[in-house]
Amino acid sequence: MDDIKSYVQQHKQRFLDELIELLKIPSVSADPAYSQDVIDTANAVKASLEKAGCDLVEICDTPGYPIVYGEKIIDKNLPTVLVYGHYDVQPPDPMDLWTSPPFEPVIKTTELHPEGAIFARGACDDKGQMYMHVKALEYMVRTNTLPCNVKFMIEGEEEVGSKSLGWFVERNHEKLANDVILISDTGMISNQQPSITTGLRGLSYVEVEVTGPNRDLHSGLYGGAVANPINILAKMIASMHDENNHITIPGFYDKVQELSQEERAEMAKAPFDLDKYKKALDLNDIYGEKGYVTNERNSIRPTLDVNGIWGGYTGEGAKTVIASKAYAKISMRLVPNQDWEEITELFTKHFEAIAPSGVTVKVKPHHGGQGYVTPTDSIGYQAAARAYEDSFGVKPIPVRSGGSIPIVALFEKELKSKTIMMGFGLDSDAIHSPNEHFGIFNYLKGIETIPLFYKYFVELSK
Amino acid sequence: MDDIKSYVQQHKQRFLDELIELLKIPSVSADPAYSQDVIDTANAVKASLEKAGCDLVEICDTPGYPIVYGEKIIDKNLPTVLVYGHYDVQPPDPMDLWTSPPFEPVIKTTELHPEGAIFARGACDDKGQMYMHVKALEYMVRTNTLPCNVKFMIEGEEEVGSKSLGWFVERNHEKLANDVILISDTGMISNQQPSITTGLRGLSYVEVEVTGPNRDLHSGLYGGAVANPINILAKMIASMHDENNHITIPGFYDKVQELSQEERAEMAKAPFDLDKYKKALDLNDIYGEKGYVTNERNSIRPTLDVNGIWGGYTGEGAKTVIASKAYAKISMRLVPNQDWEEITELFTKHFEAIAPSGVTVKVKPHHGGQGYVTPTDSIGYQAAARAYEDSFGVKPIPVRSGGSIPIVALFEKELKSKTIMMGFGLDSDAIHSPNEHFGIFNYLKGIETIPLFYKYFVELSK
Repeated sequence: MDDIKSYVQQHKQRFLDELIELLKIPSVSADPAYSQDVIDTANAVKASLEKAGCDLVEICDTPGYPIVYGEKIIDKNLPTVLVYGHYDVQPPDPMDLWTSPPFEPVIKTTELHPEGAIFARGACDDKGQMYMHVKALEYMVRTNTLPCNVKFMIEGEEEVGSKSLGWFVERNHEKLANDVILISDTGMISNQQPSITTGLRGLSYVEVEVTGPNRDLHSGLYGGAVANPINILAKMIASMHDENNHITIPGFYDKVQELSQEERAEMAKAPFDLDKYKKALDLNDIYGEKGYVTNERNSIRPTLDVNGIWGGYTGEGAKTVIASKAYAKISMRLVPNQDWEEITELFTKHFEAIAPSGVTVKVKPHHGGQGYVTPTDSIGYQAAARAYEDSFGVKPIPVRSGGSIPIVALFEKELKSKTIMMGFGLDSDAIHSPNEHFGIFNYLKGIETIPLFYKYFVELSK
Repeated sequence: MDDIKSYVQQHKQRFLDELIELLKIPSVSADPAYSQDVIDTANAVKASLEKAGCDLVEICDTPGYPIVYGEKIIDKNLPTVLVYGHYDVQPPDPMDLWTSPPFEPVIKTTELHPEGAIFARGACDDKGQMYMHVKALEYMVRTNTLPCNVKFMIEGEEEVGSKSLGWFVERNHEKLANDVILISDTGMISNQQPSITTGLRGLSYVEVEVTGPNRDLHSGLYGGAVANPINILAKMIASMHDENNHITIPGFYDKVQELSQEERAEMAKAPFDLDKYKKALDLNDIYGEKGYVTNERNSIRPTLDVNGIWGGYTGEGAKTVIASKAYAKISMRLVPNQDWEEITELFTKHFEAIAPSGVTVKVKPHHGGQGYVTPTDSIGYQAAARAYEDSFGVKPIPVRSGGSIPIVALFEKELKSKTIMMGFGLDSDAIHSPNEHFGIFNYLKGIETIPLFYKYFVELSK
């Protein structure tokens, strides 16, 4: 398809300008301070879908942030592709580590992006990857090459657990009826070696609170005589991994799917350079669960990480205080067959059980999601593989990702269809970090590849 | 001495008003944002000493905040009392737990203070207790009953380690020459049972930093494969106490002075109600070092407490991030014979030694001070004991406090004189906590008792 290649080259600048406008709106769903910006972003997405050629576009109200729904139905007898994406972004902090303001997009070149990359929060996750689908639709509509029906469902709460999306999907089976779900919210190995994510980890995210004395105390007068909630919290967190970095929560591993030696050997084929990996992160060594290599630790194995901790005096200088309370945000990445709600319960029971007398603890479940695996023999996967091979000239490798898209499992349960994760980002794009960026090559390559997926999916569906 | 009692009654309202004015200035030495307020407070103290009758008052510059020096020399052949106090205060946070603004003093009654107490940061620690000495001087000067020479040395960095005070004392041996040092910066058992603090704990205060990856990472893509600095910090902190809550730093206890069974039996005589203690703090149980009771754990035993911890995402909602860095402020309370600089070194060496590969750690010593013991057979202690007995009608009990006044040991080393700690606060006064307060009874009783100390000290010195 040279048409798409030349179309992309012809409209390249406009495609970049449109994405940059979208990135300027700080749609941080985790922080209520940005709620109006989140709404504004939903409206911007709606307008872009209308311009791209959808026949019907709606802002669908939910208990939380709205979902933007759009569709172009050309023939009821043809297959339907449902595109999912999200228009909300992660909080930008720590702000001081950004080399340019997170919501003032700029194009800079990097070692991996010699053609330049757009630096902004959400550039890759997920505004940039979501917008590739909008532009792919524009191409197919304008050139009259859309081979099937298409529906868009773009949500605004992915970074905080997609609560409203679940609510919406459960109530709109018919509206969302489809033959395959297409998502670009993952990465690929490199610009030379594309890959398709076939597995995702689940997630259980909780916040814990440890309370000691009913007020902050002078550490001289009380130190040594009462339980210090920060020391206790540290002790409780530390006890959750044993000396082999196995998680100690009873029952945590009971349902974990162990991979066969063959599967692990297949995984090991993905190119990986440990020295480069360490160098990129300035690490003197890696760290993790005994008996597994890095690419297994961050994909097929469950984890427990503290994402945030706070308590006591954290200002300038010194304060000799024993805090009344200490807090932590803790998330567990789960693998297929681990049920996130069951894991959340196991965590809660365990955390309460190990709390020593002298303190009281509270566990507040935040959100979660199930893990997922895409069968590589499915039509959807085959269509995606051909699309990548055409546009990159290289066969994509199927990989299991450590990340979570909590609603993929929900889609299968509610909509009975498989999800194909066509990601075009790179691990080095710093999503969820300061200086998030998305390569111009990747953005345009995505727009090129997506119409090929439609073409092959329709062909293989016949 | 009914004169002093009636004088206090007669001027009670003015004594309260003057202290309240002083408490309105937020002299938080730990936070540079308040630096001008700290200076303003020094000037206010200078003016109060001049008004009270000092012949000479100076604002003495130091590398840090100034020291207010005042003196009234009536006869070179008479003994000299050096009064020490501090005009700086602890940071007020957490602000939201204050029932009235920390720097807008109000008088409220409490169960222990039926005559009312002044609620404000610094009310007890140490503006209120320091100002008792100013008013006691005023009385002795106006009634011409000052029986000896008096010097005042009021500093502005006690809450951050008194660095400049050490600098000042070392350079002013002659100016500060004295026969006894008098400090009111401690508490007593109750308004019915006065006590005199004869021992103080030393202090070593450090800040630690644990660094993992060079940037915040997505916990899904990297979780399980790299060391999480928060998890590691928790593990390191947890490892610093064993199952008996003994501190595990090698050499930490080597120089700790063990008390004899007799001394411990003497200590046990101090009235203590464990149920009341737990109830006052809403604790279901106490917690501490095996083999020692509460009153020993917080006085004759060294401790290690985390005073603050922070890292990762601590805002609203959820963020699935692995932080690049985690921090903690850690203080160790020390007992006589433990050298704070040596302990700081032991801590640093140990903390660096237990850091796993995969992270790097930094230890930044904040400040510290030595422990101290006042001999109960000294003239100073005897004079103080009689003064309390006269004004309270009850013999005071000598007690060891868990708190630290880092410079008391320095005074002995540099000025070769003993320090008497005549404290009038109560443990329940919430110093270093929200809603700090100081009983009106205690404030006025202090002003009454201090002139008696001068009287007896001069008599016993003859």
